[in-house]
Amino acid sequence: MRKELLRLRERMQAERIDAWLIMTDDFHGSEYVGDYFKCREYISGFTGSAGTLLVLKDHVGLWTDGRYFLQAKEQLEGSGITLYRSGQPGVPSLENVLQERLSAGETLGFDGRCVMAGYARRLREQLEEKGITVVSGFDLVGDVWEDRPPLSREPVWILPEEYAGMGAGEKIAEVRRVLKQKKADWFLLASLEDICWLLNVRGNDVECTPVVLSYLLMSQEEVRWYVQTEALSPEVRDYLAQTGICLREYGEIYADVERLPAGSRLLYDENHVNDALISRIPPEVEAEDGENPTLLLKAIKNPVEVSNERAAHIKDGVAVTRFLFWLKKQRKEEETGKWQTPVTELGAAAKLETFRREQDGYLGPSFYPILAYGEHGAIVHYAADEDSDIPLRPEGFLLADTGGHYKEGTTDITRTIALGPLTREQKEMYTLVLKGHIRLADAVFLKGAAGMSLDVLARTPLWERGLDYNHGTGHGVGYLLSVHEGPNSFRYRPAATRGNDCVLEEGMITSDEPGIYLEGRFGIRLENLLVCARKRENTFGVFLGFEPLTMVPFDREAILGEMLSEKERNWLNTYHRKVFETLSPYLEEEERRWLREETAEI
Amino acid sequence: MRKELLRLRERMQAERIDAWLIMTDDFHGSEYVGDYFKCREYISGFTGSAGTLLVLKDHVGLWTDGRYFLQAKEQLEGSGITLYRSGQPGVPSLENVLQERLSAGETLGFDGRCVMAGYARRLREQLEEKGITVVSGFDLVGDVWEDRPPLSREPVWILPEEYAGMGAGEKIAEVRRVLKQKKADWFLLASLEDICWLLNVRGNDVECTPVVLSYLLMSQEEVRWYVQTEALSPEVRDYLAQTGICLREYGEIYADVERLPAGSRLLYDENHVNDALISRIPPEVEAEDGENPTLLLKAIKNPVEVSNERAAHIKDGVAVTRFLFWLKKQRKEEETGKWQTPVTELGAAAKLETFRREQDGYLGPSFYPILAYGEHGAIVHYAADEDSDIPLRPEGFLLADTGGHYKEGTTDITRTIALGPLTREQKEMYTLVLKGHIRLADAVFLKGAAGMSLDVLARTPLWERGLDYNHGTGHGVGYLLSVHEGPNSFRYRPAATRGNDCVLEEGMITSDEPGIYLEGRFGIRLENLLVCARKRENTFGVFLGFEPLTMVPFDREAILGEMLSEKERNWLNTYHRKVFETLSPYLEEEERRWLREETAEI
Repeated sequence: MRKELLRLRERMQAERIDAWLIMTDDFHGSEYVGDYFKCREYISGFTGSAGTLLVLKDHVGLWTDGRYFLQAKEQLEGSGITLYRSGQPGVPSLENVLQERLSAGETLGFDGRCVMAGYARRLREQLEEKGITVVSGFDLVGDVWEDRPPLSREPVWILPEEYAGMGAGEKIAEVRRVLKQKKADWFLLASLEDICWLLNVRGNDVECTPVVLSYLLMSQEEVRWYVQTEALSPEVRDYLAQTGICLREYGEIYADVERLPAGSRLLYDENHVNDALISRIPPEVEAEDGENPTLLLKAIKNPVEVSNERAAHIKDGVAVTRFLFWLKKQRKEEETGKWQTPVTELGAAAKLETFRREQDGYLGPSFYPILAYGEHGAIVHYAADEDSDIPLRPEGFLLADTGGHYKEGTTDITRTIALGPLTREQKEMYTLVLKGHIRLADAVFLKGAAGMSLDVLARTPLWERGLDYNHGTGHGVGYLLSVHEGPNSFRYRPAATRGNDCVLEEGMITSDEPGIYLEGRFGIRLENLLVCARKRENTFGVFLGFEPLTMVPFDREAILGEMLSEKERNWLNTYHRKVFETLSPYLEEEERRWLREETAEI
Repeated sequence: MRKELLRLRERMQAERIDAWLIMTDDFHGSEYVGDYFKCREYISGFTGSAGTLLVLKDHVGLWTDGRYFLQAKEQLEGSGITLYRSGQPGVPSLENVLQERLSAGETLGFDGRCVMAGYARRLREQLEEKGITVVSGFDLVGDVWEDRPPLSREPVWILPEEYAGMGAGEKIAEVRRVLKQKKADWFLLASLEDICWLLNVRGNDVECTPVVLSYLLMSQEEVRWYVQTEALSPEVRDYLAQTGICLREYGEIYADVERLPAGSRLLYDENHVNDALISRIPPEVEAEDGENPTLLLKAIKNPVEVSNERAAHIKDGVAVTRFLFWLKKQRKEEETGKWQTPVTELGAAAKLETFRREQDGYLGPSFYPILAYGEHGAIVHYAADEDSDIPLRPEGFLLADTGGHYKEGTTDITRTIALGPLTREQKEMYTLVLKGHIRLADAVFLKGAAGMSLDVLARTPLWERGLDYNHGTGHGVGYLLSVHEGPNSFRYRPAATRGNDCVLEEGMITSDEPGIYLEGRFGIRLENLLVCARKRENTFGVFLGFEPLTMVPFDREAILGEMLSEKERNWLNTYHRKVFETLSPYLEEEERRWLREETAEI
């Protein structure tokens, strides 16, 4: 048994805590977390980006999702920790195990700063009914973690209005209008993306997400920003002062929440504020849970943001297209016996990163790149590491799902690339996925439709053949923030949480990424980002549609033209023509020649 | 000004009520209501099936929806009542007008028995905040309505298990299991369809809906049925006694709710229990609002019900097909100068009713038949009356949306029939609607999809051309109950109320009825009922699809075959082949010959 686990158990015993719960969240419920927050990894040794650890006196369980079943199995081997494969038939949930293994009079503990209030509330309701005590004021892992990395405190920088398209003052005024409507005196915001969007600032405190560890508390009169003030340059301090933003130290939010005036109304989103903070709200304050008003405002990109995003996607398109050309050239050299150094998945990822770095304004990857060759492509969120890395060979598919942050916005693109001859089945599957991608991209719909109303368009070609991909068709994308952002998305199942029924609006950016995954064989995913745009207006209403932001060709070697309808073929040819026109000025002669062939009419 | 209105105002003055609200609901929130409940019609003179009247001291307003704009305008002419066209841009809602015209200290009144609790609660919240008093204990219209028809008290009859497919005892046990899960001691049910489904009884107290005016209150120990006991024969009393159902008089529910034991938990659906009843719940009872557990159980038809529904649809198909043949023959006679008596919309409806009556087990129409000729077809819920009735002519479209109740189930079918030569545009529009109908009917989808996930399939052919129909694509259908039943439906807009995200399940019956309505010109709607059925199961999950219950040909004269995809054409030819095979044994030789031509391959 790991010594970290043993020491945690000692602390549990000392505090008379029978079960200790470790989520993967930071204080803000961020999708990725900084090293300071990797408590679950520290105790269990499992390094995946998602997972929950439950330490009991006589049992330790780790729950993670399909992306990490293989990795978790390997990393937990011999640790004595039981792997619970979430969502698999017959696998008990964390809540089931808690209910079953804890008895009345026992105590569950967790660090309330790292558990979102909504989840903590539901957990308490379930357990307290059974006479189980829930405590949330300890940080037992912090107590035993001697060389714990410090909290990130990277420099904060200002995103100028030419990139943001709207001043922070104007955004704050907009939020204040919503608060007035909702009759809220105070608004507590802990979601880092929302705070950075509102203040037009960026940082580097969370992997792949240029945000700043901070909280925000605002009213009609003031905006208080709780941040590690050492991270602020004099220039940033000036900017904040001019924008009317009061600075507070990061940790002071807890005391300030306790001091909220009696009788005032506070708005917060229980799914995006941690439990420790919410537990400080005085009972005399009327606290109302509701969606953050910043969520929808942030999702609807303004015209400047949309136009910047187009620019970012041209840069990204140039980088990815160069990468495709380079890959295809490698293969030619293999065919003629001149294959140079064999390239692996990690090597290919590094090469793509080099192409992106050549682009002006590139800031870094927007998520861990997925370059998955052959059967690795069937693992939906495969991330190569030194153990799993394999060399590419001149056959089959390479699935490349990558993205970058630029000052002009954030990209997320998947192409599946033929590295050599394909089987008929591989081409059929590729074309089915492409048909689904196109049908959604080419949709025209009345304003009022939600992502859930349209998802089926991408799935129909697969469903008709008894196939499916076990993930949503698309997610919202932030502007130089998180690459996964709500409330817009494409999925077909009603979700239990809020935002299920978000209506699509002009300016929303959503990914369109159907796929097919045949275990042990290959995987295909094709992803563009789409911006929602107005198509026409008449007596029936306003008709909306999408315009692709992503500018990278699909692989014509993998497409069976005869499987495309005329409408699908038209979309593809128009898209390819646009890709060539847009990218060719930025390419070398050899690359341009290749792109012309690659984008010729099908 | 109508004398009924003047007398109501006198009563309002006497009771110091400044505004009187009249909804169209009965005590149970039924879709249609018996004559006793037609207070809005009595006071305003407007006879439509939907509308709300608000009587103020100096203003009277009537709100109704698009179905009734024309009719309401005519019927309100000269009455001094202002028509508010609900949902039209710039038209204030009832709530807006209340907020604007009532001041603090004034009083709004309504009969709490005829307003559902959820709506009353929201109204109170809005108005009491402004200092407006809401009173709900009066029946002012009843006070002035001298010749008010009595409450309906039609005989109750038993639906034998060979029709219901499941005994009442089994159903009650099923509901008790749900109540246990929900930790509810008592369940209060006021929705007439749910009560009749649960007890396997039927009646005739509500137009077009074979239900019994009654309430039900049940626990793990007892089931109490509150009903006008004079409507029960000795046989029915015996059946109820054997099933363990205690009888109470209809009105006793109010006193019994007041006597619910302190500390017990009561489940009810605030959208389907009236405000007067809910206001009687003692404060010591923990009352919990939630969806009626009967709703989903009733919607998922058991195998016996599905098989009976198929039988009902064969009978109905024979009747409607005979009607189609008769219409087409009339037209032939017109062409050869032998047109007999000119037929009007009402005449055609009567003829169709005659054909249905010839079918064994036919009980009556399941809703007011819509036979809309020419431009009347563009009025979505047109119902011909003596004033609007027009003769059919041998040209253009007749839209026929009708349905019947049989012991074996309930039908609802729309066909749009070419009475003579059609323009190219009429055929194009018909074919677009047919394409949408087929795409939804032919869908294959993974279990977990909701109606909202699929609606777009029916709309795509229209949306791509900038067209739409301003209604849902489909609604659930009851088994010898209401022809409109939840929670399943097809629509693309997220709804504000519960049930938005009902997942489709095997055995649910839903209509598939896209349309197109060109004002002042013509309307097209094509409707079959579809039963959800399992298609295949593999590693991706369970795939579901639909089977059409309705067995009536589409009009080949209106179909442009070249506009259909191969898949659509296959569906249509397969469907038509099945229609012919199923119906031909029941038809006369001349009808059969015609049907063979009508269903020949396209």
